[in-house]
Amino acid sequence: MTNIISNNPVYDICLSYQKTAALQAAIKLDIFTKIGNSRLSAEQISDMTGAAPRGVRILCDFLCIIGMLEKESALYCLSAEAQRLLDRSSPYCLADIIDFYASPEIVSQVMNDPLSYVMTGGASGMTNVSPDNPVWVKFALAMIPFTSVTAKRTAAYIARRGMKPRKILDVAAGHGLFGIEAAAAVSEAFVTAIDWGAVLEVAKKNAASAGLAERYQTIIGDAFKIDWGENYDLILLPNILHHFDREGCVQMMGRARKSLSSTGSVFVIDIMPDSDRVSPPEQAAFAFLMLATTPRGDAYICEEYEAMAKEVGLNLVESRKLPPTPQTLMEFRL
Amino acid sequence: MTNIISNNPVYDICLSYQKTAALQAAIKLDIFTKIGNSRLSAEQISDMTGAAPRGVRILCDFLCIIGMLEKESALYCLSAEAQRLLDRSSPYCLADIIDFYASPEIVSQVMNDPLSYVMTGGASGMTNVSPDNPVWVKFALAMIPFTSVTAKRTAAYIARRGMKPRKILDVAAGHGLFGIEAAAAVSEAFVTAIDWGAVLEVAKKNAASAGLAERYQTIIGDAFKIDWGENYDLILLPNILHHFDREGCVQMMGRARKSLSSTGSVFVIDIMPDSDRVSPPEQAAFAFLMLATTPRGDAYICEEYEAMAKEVGLNLVESRKLPPTPQTLMEFRL
Repeated sequence: MTNIISNNPVYDICLSYQKTAALQAAIKLDIFTKIGNSRLSAEQISDMTGAAPRGVRILCDFLCIIGMLEKESALYCLSAEAQRLLDRSSPYCLADIIDFYASPEIVSQVMNDPLSYVMTGGASGMTNVSPDNPVWVKFALAMIPFTSVTAKRTAAYIARRGMKPRKILDVAAGHGLFGIEAAAAVSEAFVTAIDWGAVLEVAKKNAASAGLAERYQTIIGDAFKIDWGENYDLILLPNILHHFDREGCVQMMGRARKSLSSTGSVFVIDIMPDSDRVSPPEQAAFAFLMLATTPRGDAYICEEYEAMAKEVGLNLVESRKLPPTPQTLMEFRL
Repeated sequence: MTNIISNNPVYDICLSYQKTAALQAAIKLDIFTKIGNSRLSAEQISDMTGAAPRGVRILCDFLCIIGMLEKESALYCLSAEAQRLLDRSSPYCLADIIDFYASPEIVSQVMNDPLSYVMTGGASGMTNVSPDNPVWVKFALAMIPFTSVTAKRTAAYIARRGMKPRKILDVAAGHGLFGIEAAAAVSEAFVTAIDWGAVLEVAKKNAASAGLAERYQTIIGDAFKIDWGENYDLILLPNILHHFDREGCVQMMGRARKSLSSTGSVFVIDIMPDSDRVSPPEQAAFAFLMLATTPRGDAYICEEYEAMAKEVGLNLVESRKLPPTPQTLMEFRL
């Protein structure tokens, strides 16, 4: 796979946004699912999608160049990556993530004025950490395929440690997958999910689909302000701390410590680069998205999370990467 | 060099626009020139640029990930590519091209609604081929470093063929570099440049800088409509035909034939992919930019240009790639 479109890296980077645009158009037309196991001409794909033959031909050629299609004698078929990650009949299909990452909200935050957030060291205003931002409903719906693998790996970690949490708290639950997978793995578990109201509707629906409606409750509100309740055996902080500065992270961890049972665990599940902050590329690059879209968020390294936790009296039990996901799970206890 | 930020190609493509944004911020801060041959910390770069240390640190880490900087013990230095292509003290510096490719006009045409131009097979309205579009002044200024190598290679071709054109016509001259380099190489040559008025101001300024003011004249207007004059020994059609459909190209070539002396040559200088239309990647990818930003433009292959020329009575003399540029020069005569 290569998605480098030029031998001139500067030209390639200047026009990198074209790749996002092309993938977005292709996913909206559901080209990958429609091609499936076939080898089709531009005209055939045009007939199936209703898009102009000329538009399809140029789009499909571009998808070949970025490694998502292959072309032989004017017929297009899926590349191995597209078969796995973009055909909706694949269990690993990630197509929906385009709805979040190429959403006008996120694209404009990143693209409109890159100089400004570099100059000031963060996005102006609250941007995507502002209360009840509708982008999080989009996120909750779009990111399920991406997050579900991490949530399953987290549940497997719980099983491997022989944990039997009865009371689980899922902070900034979003789609709710982390709490839902944990409850699915521990039959006596009861989950409380905290998030904005509109997002929790998505989580409740997902919990009901998983047959957990009876063991699932929600608390609507700002996780920095509302009462979390107490005596939880497991508190999940999945993909939430990266939105805040160090002070915000410490405050959030302090709330977790206060709501934790004496034998309970706090899980920080997040994208953590190595201490050089430039590797692995996916994890390290995440810091830039946080620079562009949050006032003071970051991709923190493990050592930073460990030091924050120590400040509130939580100690590291285990730090575990969750391949093939880009995430790491850190377990803390009193 | 790698500018792949993730092992997951779909995630990488979904967020590819971040690379353009980061490079744009870095070029606006002139980070590459400021680092030069040094190895500097984020704090030092922050002092030199006035940008927040946090913004600089995250930006520079991201630039490492996309191959434009390197990092060792928290100090940043230029990658070999950045030394050559982004440091303004390098003769090959391409930094200015970001002003065109990441301009709001072009980015919004590509990113705002990718589905629409794929569905209809072209951009709606006239977009960047509309009369007197100010984007072409931006283009003329930004693309000089990118185009000057092609213009010099074109002048070298003229010399190699022993051509001594007295009357040169540069159609859609833009920055004017093609006509200017040709006139610089042939002392008896007199150039006439056609383009919109505002753009020709850039061309005239460039001609004057090259000491050619006395041998340079302009005709303002739409190249499809105005009178080109006649009896030209050399007519240049550089990077213009790709904006139009086949019919438009044939029409433009027909005008060239009419204005050509009996022994004159027409040069089509353009980005031409191989006949598979998916290689080489840079040339082939260009078709997508034309799909997004013009009603019916394309990256035509050599054989298509040859057939169009034949229709108006022009015959191929030679077709020559101009490495390291992505362009090809095709010479036609009666």
